[in-house]
Amino acid sequence: MYGPGDVRIEEREEPRIVEPTDAIIRLAATCICGSDLWPYRGLDAWDWPVAMGHEYMGIVEEVGTDVSNVKPGQFVIGSFFASDNTCEIAAPATRLPASSVNVWAGAQAEYLRVPLADGTLVEMPGIPDDDLVPSLLAASDVLGTGWFGAVAAQAAPGKTVAVVGDGAVGLLGILSAKQVGAERIIAMSRHASRQQLARGYGATDIVEERGDEGVELIKKLTDGLGAHSVMEAVGTQESMMQAIRATRPGGRVAYVGVAHGVELPGHELFFSHTHLHGGPAPVRGYLPKLIDLIWNRQIDPGKVFDLELPLDEAAEGNKAMDERRAIKVLLRP
Amino acid sequence: MYGPGDVRIEEREEPRIVEPTDAIIRLAATCICGSDLWPYRGLDAWDWPVAMGHEYMGIVEEVGTDVSNVKPGQFVIGSFFASDNTCEIAAPATRLPASSVNVWAGAQAEYLRVPLADGTLVEMPGIPDDDLVPSLLAASDVLGTGWFGAVAAQAAPGKTVAVVGDGAVGLLGILSAKQVGAERIIAMSRHASRQQLARGYGATDIVEERGDEGVELIKKLTDGLGAHSVMEAVGTQESMMQAIRATRPGGRVAYVGVAHGVELPGHELFFSHTHLHGGPAPVRGYLPKLIDLIWNRQIDPGKVFDLELPLDEAAEGNKAMDERRAIKVLLRP
Repeated sequence: MYGPGDVRIEEREEPRIVEPTDAIIRLAATCICGSDLWPYRGLDAWDWPVAMGHEYMGIVEEVGTDVSNVKPGQFVIGSFFASDNTCEIAAPATRLPASSVNVWAGAQAEYLRVPLADGTLVEMPGIPDDDLVPSLLAASDVLGTGWFGAVAAQAAPGKTVAVVGDGAVGLLGILSAKQVGAERIIAMSRHASRQQLARGYGATDIVEERGDEGVELIKKLTDGLGAHSVMEAVGTQESMMQAIRATRPGGRVAYVGVAHGVELPGHELFFSHTHLHGGPAPVRGYLPKLIDLIWNRQIDPGKVFDLELPLDEAAEGNKAMDERRAIKVLLRP
Repeated sequence: MYGPGDVRIEEREEPRIVEPTDAIIRLAATCICGSDLWPYRGLDAWDWPVAMGHEYMGIVEEVGTDVSNVKPGQFVIGSFFASDNTCEIAAPATRLPASSVNVWAGAQAEYLRVPLADGTLVEMPGIPDDDLVPSLLAASDVLGTGWFGAVAAQAAPGKTVAVVGDGAVGLLGILSAKQVGAERIIAMSRHASRQQLARGYGATDIVEERGDEGVELIKKLTDGLGAHSVMEAVGTQESMMQAIRATRPGGRVAYVGVAHGVELPGHELFFSHTHLHGGPAPVRGYLPKLIDLIWNRQIDPGKVFDLELPLDEAAEGNKAMDERRAIKVLLRP
């Protein structure tokens, strides 16, 4: 990406092993993330140009001398953070500074250098059937992020979960809440096609209204108390406040939309009595379980890819997502 | 309080039963809260005058026709919120709107009307020895609030806990963290007398520095990671950011200082990977346990009262706390 709205496909040098802990993978599929729309819309100030892409799956081509968990020829997947997986922090991702997101740019390509390959990459049980590729690719970020949302919001049997945001992460947050047994799942969405997908993933109710009006409707559906668990999957001031206000006292707000221009009013937060947790999802930790669920065809997160393009048409893919013609675009190198 | 810095003691009509769920208690002891300093310093815009006081213990004088759990002659204690104790929200306090804090003003008096007496008041095992009075009174707010801080921060064996704020709540947060078995407790305090009390309550380390410098020292003490659990017991922007930044990724920030002018930057919060929880403490739920610990002389939270005055000298009490000559002032009607 050379600047807002300016996506170009160009020849770059093939990546090679730099550190002995690196692996080089040949990508089978990659995709465009909803978070790419922030810079695309000029809402993130970056040093242009930036190599885009942080979701990937593919075949190991080569590994550094210190890599022992993965071998050339294996089909692997990783998350958007490199993970050494050995630190004492529960979420392996968090060992790296937040700026490592940028280290990760560049997965919209034919080849990718993956640092800390032993901790980062997870081998698949075999060569995936082609129809499983979108779902496996979804695990690389959006499914793992939605799963983190459900975990952080403590979605569980007997609980009412509300999801703010009907992008890929919000939709897969619904799928995740359903998987962990939530009793009732309220999708906040005003787009017919996304509502349909939401229902397919387990949403029991749809709320089309936003802001205070949307909050009032959530309260009406929950005896005036608000939802037990609310996932925020947008990252704006409005969506954060909608999430906090739709949560009952003692309830849980999970924020997984990358916050942009958000300032949380301390006084309101104080009296809301909610729990807050969120941030970049520790996707790596969930990957083995998520791959298993997909491999056994128990979940189908790949449905969020409603447009598939050759890698060469990445510019059109960004445009389609920006214009909300597509929820999420899969790119085939 | 007639305005900032203007505290007057005056004769008012004796409270009487208004609702059948009310009780009237004759106060044995009451006190001035650190949160009273916000209006005292002109930092809360109130409709003056306001009857002050929300911490109390005393003898039941009279009960309404619907009250069955407490009887005249019993020694009781309650928290700063009226609690019906029957709702489905975990924290009983939260059934009432936040504005009920104002309903509660008026405990700096000889008599107090307590709404929802059945849910709100807790009977003591008997008539307390006089030396237990300060500790029991502390349970009414500051101890219960410090306890909530320890619970919300998930202080526990093996954990390092940091406490921002060396007022009564912060000090009793230290006591609470110790009670729940925290391994290491870092007090952030620059006042010798408060440091001494902090150590007496279980602090293992003292950090005198504030802001980023204080955060750096906490990180130095915790292998560069930050504390597992941080309690914020002040309520300012600086103290909140200090708490969030001193917490390791995946750690817990508990905020129990009433937030004033606080705006949490969403982007930093997102990448902090911390958990946040706080607000007015559900003290009522903790009272039976806290009374038990005090009655059996296992804890001595009353030490935070370092000045005792007759009720008539409430103005001097506020002044002493404002000037930090006293941590907390007990008033005897």
